[in-house]
Amino acid sequence: MTSTRNIYLKMKTLEQARDILFKAFPGFGTLDTEMVTADQAVGRVLAEPVFAKISSPGFHSAAMDGIAVKAEATYGACETSPKKLILNKDAFYVNTGHVLPQGTDAVIMMEHINIQDENIAEIEAPAFPWQYIRKMGEDIVATELLFPRNHMISPYCTGALIGGGVFSVPVRKKPEVMLIPTGSELLDWKKINIENMKPGQVLESNSYVLGNMIEACGGKYARHGLMPDNPEKIIKAVEDAVNNDFDIVLTVGGSSAGSEDYTKEVIKSLGEILVHGVTIMPGKPVIIGMVKGKPVIGMPGYPVSMIVAFEQFVMPLICRLLGRPEPEREKVLVDVTRKIPSKLGIEEFLRVKLGKVGNRITASSLPRGAGSITTITDADGIIRIPANSEGIKENETVTAELFKPLNAVHNTIVIVGSHDNTLDILADQLKIENSGITLCSSHVGSMGGLMAIKRGVCHVAGSHLLDTENGSYNISYIKRFLPDIKVKIVNLVFRDQGLIIPKGNPKNIHGIEDLARKDIKFINRQSGAGTRILLDYQLNKLNISPEMIQGYGHEEFTHMSVAVAVLNRTADTGLGICAAARALNLEFIPVVTEQYDLIIPEEHFESKNIKILINTIKSMDFQTRVKALGGYHTERTGEIII
Amino acid sequence: MTSTRNIYLKMKTLEQARDILFKAFPGFGTLDTEMVTADQAVGRVLAEPVFAKISSPGFHSAAMDGIAVKAEATYGACETSPKKLILNKDAFYVNTGHVLPQGTDAVIMMEHINIQDENIAEIEAPAFPWQYIRKMGEDIVATELLFPRNHMISPYCTGALIGGGVFSVPVRKKPEVMLIPTGSELLDWKKINIENMKPGQVLESNSYVLGNMIEACGGKYARHGLMPDNPEKIIKAVEDAVNNDFDIVLTVGGSSAGSEDYTKEVIKSLGEILVHGVTIMPGKPVIIGMVKGKPVIGMPGYPVSMIVAFEQFVMPLICRLLGRPEPEREKVLVDVTRKIPSKLGIEEFLRVKLGKVGNRITASSLPRGAGSITTITDADGIIRIPANSEGIKENETVTAELFKPLNAVHNTIVIVGSHDNTLDILADQLKIENSGITLCSSHVGSMGGLMAIKRGVCHVAGSHLLDTENGSYNISYIKRFLPDIKVKIVNLVFRDQGLIIPKGNPKNIHGIEDLARKDIKFINRQSGAGTRILLDYQLNKLNISPEMIQGYGHEEFTHMSVAVAVLNRTADTGLGICAAARALNLEFIPVVTEQYDLIIPEEHFESKNIKILINTIKSMDFQTRVKALGGYHTERTGEIII
Repeated sequence: MTSTRNIYLKMKTLEQARDILFKAFPGFGTLDTEMVTADQAVGRVLAEPVFAKISSPGFHSAAMDGIAVKAEATYGACETSPKKLILNKDAFYVNTGHVLPQGTDAVIMMEHINIQDENIAEIEAPAFPWQYIRKMGEDIVATELLFPRNHMISPYCTGALIGGGVFSVPVRKKPEVMLIPTGSELLDWKKINIENMKPGQVLESNSYVLGNMIEACGGKYARHGLMPDNPEKIIKAVEDAVNNDFDIVLTVGGSSAGSEDYTKEVIKSLGEILVHGVTIMPGKPVIIGMVKGKPVIGMPGYPVSMIVAFEQFVMPLICRLLGRPEPEREKVLVDVTRKIPSKLGIEEFLRVKLGKVGNRITASSLPRGAGSITTITDADGIIRIPANSEGIKENETVTAELFKPLNAVHNTIVIVGSHDNTLDILADQLKIENSGITLCSSHVGSMGGLMAIKRGVCHVAGSHLLDTENGSYNISYIKRFLPDIKVKIVNLVFRDQGLIIPKGNPKNIHGIEDLARKDIKFINRQSGAGTRILLDYQLNKLNISPEMIQGYGHEEFTHMSVAVAVLNRTADTGLGICAAARALNLEFIPVVTEQYDLIIPEEHFESKNIKILINTIKSMDFQTRVKALGGYHTERTGEIII
Repeated sequence: MTSTRNIYLKMKTLEQARDILFKAFPGFGTLDTEMVTADQAVGRVLAEPVFAKISSPGFHSAAMDGIAVKAEATYGACETSPKKLILNKDAFYVNTGHVLPQGTDAVIMMEHINIQDENIAEIEAPAFPWQYIRKMGEDIVATELLFPRNHMISPYCTGALIGGGVFSVPVRKKPEVMLIPTGSELLDWKKINIENMKPGQVLESNSYVLGNMIEACGGKYARHGLMPDNPEKIIKAVEDAVNNDFDIVLTVGGSSAGSEDYTKEVIKSLGEILVHGVTIMPGKPVIIGMVKGKPVIGMPGYPVSMIVAFEQFVMPLICRLLGRPEPEREKVLVDVTRKIPSKLGIEEFLRVKLGKVGNRITASSLPRGAGSITTITDADGIIRIPANSEGIKENETVTAELFKPLNAVHNTIVIVGSHDNTLDILADQLKIENSGITLCSSHVGSMGGLMAIKRGVCHVAGSHLLDTENGSYNISYIKRFLPDIKVKIVNLVFRDQGLIIPKGNPKNIHGIEDLARKDIKFINRQSGAGTRILLDYQLNKLNISPEMIQGYGHEEFTHMSVAVAVLNRTADTGLGICAAARALNLEFIPVVTEQYDLIIPEEHFESKNIKILINTIKSMDFQTRVKALGGYHTERTGEIII
């Protein structure tokens, strides 16, 4: 068994690996040429310099509406001694763009003419030669260079091409990429019914992500049918692709060191491995090979690994074939709100959410697992932590590469704290109006939200912290933990918390008291979560100590994760909100109705974005949608509590 | 005649006009919905929020290659007392992504296992529950919000959609725009032979530029056939478009105040004029109207006016219909190298070329005429000069909106000075190699180039300044005008200068001495141009005074413009380079061979980009292309003269 496992060759740094790749495939702008018409050329890359065939304008023309005259004939005109010009003899009406009548060399603006009758125009100032005239060739001179080779045609360029008489242009053919998704666990989503999926089966999505990324950078692709983990078949597919004029071949999955990861073997049997393993995260298991002089790249199967490997290796290769520079994302300096340790010797591509809080742009890290596509679809940008760094210090200023325009980052409301499903509704509701606002929520528990306010890294904290002394929510915690910060508290919802249990209640659970039973496995929330405090309060009332509860130490960070744990029987029950139970078709035993508030520092409270947020919360539309979730009460929703 | 002319209504400021437009058409995300498959949704805008249908992963799976175990069974293992696990009973081989075998709850990495034989794996440390396991729902939990409405689907999103079991998504239909190009002077480039074009005829390109811009911001379009200046026909076309489900109608041309500009009349007869004329330049003559509740916009016919009007009015409207924010260009602070006066009360969209010289990004203005499409295709960005400003001071720092990534601006070599056709060849030659360098040349004459070096706003000056005392080039001028700046001089070419004359030499010109003839109309170069100095030197030698030459005061800024003037008989002859004559199929009488050098401050001379530039100049490829132009001598090309 061990003998068939791959062992990584000596891993390369990102720079080394790119160097090896680009030296092995040095072709720059080497693709064949095809002709396309000027209007169809947008986004294409010129294979040759393009020179104008005709001048534009192709004739002297009026640059103003008025009359065309021979300048000489106007000399001497002045206010006290105006000059009369005979229309259609000395002077000719012209509109902007009209050809200059024979014998004229100046235009006088309509506003400066007194029309005497239909035959006579009077002027009170002379014209100088060539005034208000667009000369032939003013825009484009025949034979001049319009665009150099390797120029990418923009919509604007269409105008210069047609104006210069260039109706078709030589562009580079699109590089063609063959995608071969491998893995016996894969299912084709176009052919299945998701109801029938079995554990262990996975919907193949990577090749679609790749295909769309290839198109976005100017290539085209073909997708091979799903390929089981069968080296002979994969070899055949790669060989066919290489022989069939594909410029690049990508296998997807099977590039790491597992026993069924055959990519290395495949490339070795057909050609040469150039790189196996790069010291980046995600993206480490990429394999770069050469078969018959063509790049064959083993893309990692984890989606974020695959995306990073694509952007670091495949996209640059496509750009080079097209004769284009690698695209570069807009960069911005950001403050990292929490310490981010990172492994020495590995360059990490950290996905972050960004928001402008006060005068700085703050970055908070998304989960770092390479397997979660949502860590990149949720991200506003990426921070690259260099291999020689052990991570980022709290409040350190670093460079982030943006996924969206800076302006969108400025229009993000950063909400940190307890998780509640109505925040998703709120995010969507904000999008209905033309606010341009994005709601960015991080779920770190209620106490985490208060700490985020203290550190000045959010606009709003979501919190449901119960004061077990007096039954109040949030106020006493704010007094204690944020003594120096003036805040407003706005109620978002009241909501039912309770025990989430499987359909049919197989373990016959009725309330908190059952959690102490030996046959019950509990799933808890992290400490600092309002739900955790609520649990401890209830346990205390019932004189149940944590040690008596199996699974008390097993923590999840959101209501939905607790519900998932119950759904897949990792636990028998957990405390959470009704909406989470409903969402996964689980049952719910209400324990208490609690208050969920938004805590907003006064410095942000009067801002335009927060005003829109509060108006949205107060709107009927929002409240109707919230009530439809079940387990929510909106009587005080939008009320300013203090 | 005057009665049919339009008079602008009271013009609106840009802000007022946008306000009127957006209030008249407040629809945000109001387009109908259509379903597209997840893989075809890139670039489309979600019409509804999208929630996950299944969890991803859909099962607990191994996050590492190794063995899956029940954590309990590993407790107590340590180096001194390893634990043996029976394979396929206590422990099971798993690869990354594999479903966790029944009864196991942890994975131990392959690297931490000693395989004893095919039945026994030994471990020296316990596993804790859930280690190296990707839990069900770790990436996506069924029912969670994947993307809110109005989210634009990116290639990454495809992965989250498919992973979440969402195989098709509701997106907004693309807004449909009808384009109606008007003007009796227009020709359809798809149907004509440019050889047969007559003066006054113009190739219609605006509707193609518009069509491509519409597609780039997410809309689609139909193009009406070319429409003569006939109000009845235009009315019919607009009415048909409004009745036929187009969301926006654009007429192109005919929006200013000329007698044949019918757009206002057309809109008035069908509906209502909301705005006629906006205090922007270019873009002033835009007309905004409403017909049957739909926007009908009269786009100016000058291409840059049209582009500005599109980006300020039509693009935002398309974005709003789609439920998207207006796109925003990356902004950067730039130093403007020369004073730019601007008209008070008009907001100007100034097209600029940008380059990083030393530590600052310098901006130099392109020609400001709205009729020249090349002023926008050549531009690297735009500076907006507010209506309440009289312009930009020399060296003032202002904000520019970028047309290309900042990185490309950094990689621009700014060359200012005398014009020579070989600079086009050099620009193209630099593109052949993967240098990423763009050559940006401004033509302001040799002396202008030296002044640009003095002001620190260019990397290189192109110069051929003859010292009439000793026949040397450039050196004495540099000593005099740049006494404090250390520069290198690199020869670019030696070139023939001479008289450019029409084919067949109708006026029988033989040399400079003919310029004093009464029947000869000359076209001159601007003062400070090397060619002008050369002319004056030759005239002096022949004892001809400038007053004796007709047209001595009529100046052009480039060789090509001089050649164009000769071609269209504005002048009988001008002094210029052979290449310009050849390009327009004119004749050429050599007068002198002169030296054209590149002047490069030492502070830039050692930079990577300048090294690449000089290597390119020295290359055989460049020199071969230069010689093919005719009138050039490359014996000393690339030589460092001092």
